[in-house]
Amino acid sequence: GTNFNTGSFGIGKKARSVVVKAETGGVSSINPDIRKNEDKVVDAVVLSEVSKAVTPYCRCWRSGTFPLCDGSHVKHNKATGDNVGPLLLKK
Amino acid sequence: GTNFNTGSFGIGKKARSVVVKAETGGVSSINPDIRKNEDKVVDAVVLSEVSKAVTPYCRCWRSGTFPLCDGSHVKHNKATGDNVGPLLLKK
Ligand code: FES
Ligand code: FES
Repeated sequence: GTNFNTGSFGIGKKARSVVVKAETGGVSSINPDIRKNEDKVVDAVVLSEVSKAVTPYCRCWRSGTFPLCDGSHVKHNKATGDNVGPLLLKK
Repeated sequence: GTNFNTGSFGIGKKARSVVVKAETGGVSSINPDIRKNEDKVVDAVVLSEVSKAVTPYCRCWRSGTFPLCDGSHVKHNKATGDNVGPLLLKK
């Protein structure tokens, strides 16, 4: 999960290039898209209403069915080297 | 949730400075520290064992009591402009 930006600078006779490593450790937003109109995205599950034997809930903020997990954490982990996964509710 | 790095380059007679904007949208790891020895961090909650009226579970990957929420999402949201919060299990 490290990002790089490369800039090239032509100054005087020679072009110089530089690689800058982003300071992403712990200072980046983790939710790019979900319910950005809300100050804080909190969801509640009433346990008596859980119907399936196992219900996965998303913790990667990439699910198309948030707050449920749709498996999108797999793509996120592959793209970034991350290791996140869902919370499973078990009856 | 945007990170900046500033680099100063002294080249020839003048020092020049540049600001590089990191490409963080959707390509960053969201879990900096929790159980990095595991390929995928998945937790299970057996509903019959839930004891409290409301139990918050962490979705920000910053909790000191992960998988439980300890309120650390507040600091994360303030630092990054994010809007994440816990999943509440309600009996
Ligand atoms: S889709 Fe987000 S944890 Fe599975
Ligand atoms: S500490 Fe992570 S959601 Fe509250």
